[in-house]
Amino acid sequence: MTARKLDGRILADRVLEEVRATVAARPASRRAPSLAVVLVGDDPASHVYVNAKMQACTRCGIESHRIALPARADAATLHATLARLGEDARIDGILLQLPLPSALEARSALAALAPHKDVDGLHPLNAGKLAADDFSGFVPCTPAGVLEILQRSDVPLAGRRVVILGRSVLVGRPLALLLLRRGIDATVTVAHSQSREVAELVGAAEILVAAVGKPRFVRRAWLRRGAVVVDVGIHREPHPDRPDATRLVGDVEDAATADIAAYTPVPGGVGPMTVAMLLRNTVLAWQRGGGG
Amino acid sequence: MTARKLDGRILADRVLEEVRATVAARPASRRAPSLAVVLVGDDPASHVYVNAKMQACTRCGIESHRIALPARADAATLHATLARLGEDARIDGILLQLPLPSALEARSALAALAPHKDVDGLHPLNAGKLAADDFSGFVPCTPAGVLEILQRSDVPLAGRRVVILGRSVLVGRPLALLLLRRGIDATVTVAHSQSREVAELVGAAEILVAAVGKPRFVRRAWLRRGAVVVDVGIHREPHPDRPDATRLVGDVEDAATADIAAYTPVPGGVGPMTVAMLLRNTVLAWQRGGGG
Repeated sequence: MTARKLDGRILADRVLEEVRATVAARPASRRAPSLAVVLVGDDPASHVYVNAKMQACTRCGIESHRIALPARADAATLHATLARLGEDARIDGILLQLPLPSALEARSALAALAPHKDVDGLHPLNAGKLAADDFSGFVPCTPAGVLEILQRSDVPLAGRRVVILGRSVLVGRPLALLLLRRGIDATVTVAHSQSREVAELVGAAEILVAAVGKPRFVRRAWLRRGAVVVDVGIHREPHPDRPDATRLVGDVEDAATADIAAYTPVPGGVGPMTVAMLLRNTVLAWQRGGGG
Repeated sequence: MTARKLDGRILADRVLEEVRATVAARPASRRAPSLAVVLVGDDPASHVYVNAKMQACTRCGIESHRIALPARADAATLHATLARLGEDARIDGILLQLPLPSALEARSALAALAPHKDVDGLHPLNAGKLAADDFSGFVPCTPAGVLEILQRSDVPLAGRRVVILGRSVLVGRPLALLLLRRGIDATVTVAHSQSREVAELVGAAEILVAAVGKPRFVRRAWLRRGAVVVDVGIHREPHPDRPDATRLVGDVEDAATADIAAYTPVPGGVGPMTVAMLLRNTVLAWQRGGGG
């Protein structure tokens, strides 16, 4: 059996093309959707991510704004910035790029977002709507991207055993709630650092989602024959063969060579689809708001 | 092996005694906590439940108010009633008794509750706080009661495999999030009507929580040796031996006679603890509000 690669770049391109077509089809009288990205400090990886998101916006005809605050910005400044964007009728979606500098608390900042513009789905009200099976909120982008990859790859989910490794507020928990929704109907197990018998749990997974945050944590030998493996992890580590070079690896040890049905590569798997979901949520906010 | 009965009445009595002592120990200048119960229509079971909750309040020194609306009340009337209670400084907790008459929608009514008085934990903001591991909200009473029974019975949870049958917004989903919390640390599987191989899933459970809503759905033979079984179901059915009589049964077929470690009886298991959790949440709202 050769494992099928679920190419996140190709799948995300299809979503972005749909987004672009939706935006292009608006009446002449209506303004384009707009996204505001708030970035605090100078974390290099965050700047790379924000650039990728803004480039994708441009490609799809979405207007994007970058609001950069200095690393020493205090909570009052950040909250005031978010409040102002919440009231700005020209802005449909607001993204607060995480992580924040250590002096700022993410939880209170996320709670300061206008829930109807929270296109990253991280305001507690949107988390609660997901938990309550209420479709009027926003689903966080990484879990939405994992589901999108599985659905666009025709991976059956109803009644199947999905094991999610990792219980984070950004990925593991919302993904569990999403996969439990009626119409998706997976049987969902969430395991984490305190779980016992992790190899055995992984071995029972028809679909495994690894969101542990540890490079190559999941051993090839643990995987069930015929499983579908989605790798949310992304880590930079020294290249094994080339001194002074690095490479990107995921949470799963070289899935491509395992006796499984399909896998998402790292890089080029979940990451691109996460960006595509952000744009789709932005268009959703624009459609709901009726802004123009 | 004789299965140990986890007596919800005895355990709930201890919680109620703690609640009573907390209320009694307040300064002379401070008013007692108060709970408002809103009941729409004349569902007989709802009236029984509301009476039990108000009696428990009286026993603990909590003031309780019943606001009864006619079955034909419209959404505007109900929402206005909830809004008025939300603004009333003499009221700490508000409970909207479910189910509502079919003409009313529970979701929009729950969203009309003041989140800081939502002692049943069903407003989406409180659901979201639970999902986000934010302890400033309220945990719904049935999931909180299940956890309380397990903890007070010294059932180890960290790293253990908990299987929850049922994915409801009131029980299965919030219980999953609660058991995943740091410091509780269970490995959690949620299965439901679309799950395949349910007998096998149940057989892997070190702790089984049945919240299916089907009488005697879980077969004795499915249970793992040494498991702990929590039965959230409660159903009235004809008595097998006495014509014209009925009896109450749970979602699990006669757990007492199975080769397991412990079980909650029906009745007298989760039900009494659910009421105790409502009172504990009411006192929490009173403490947070500082009302008096």
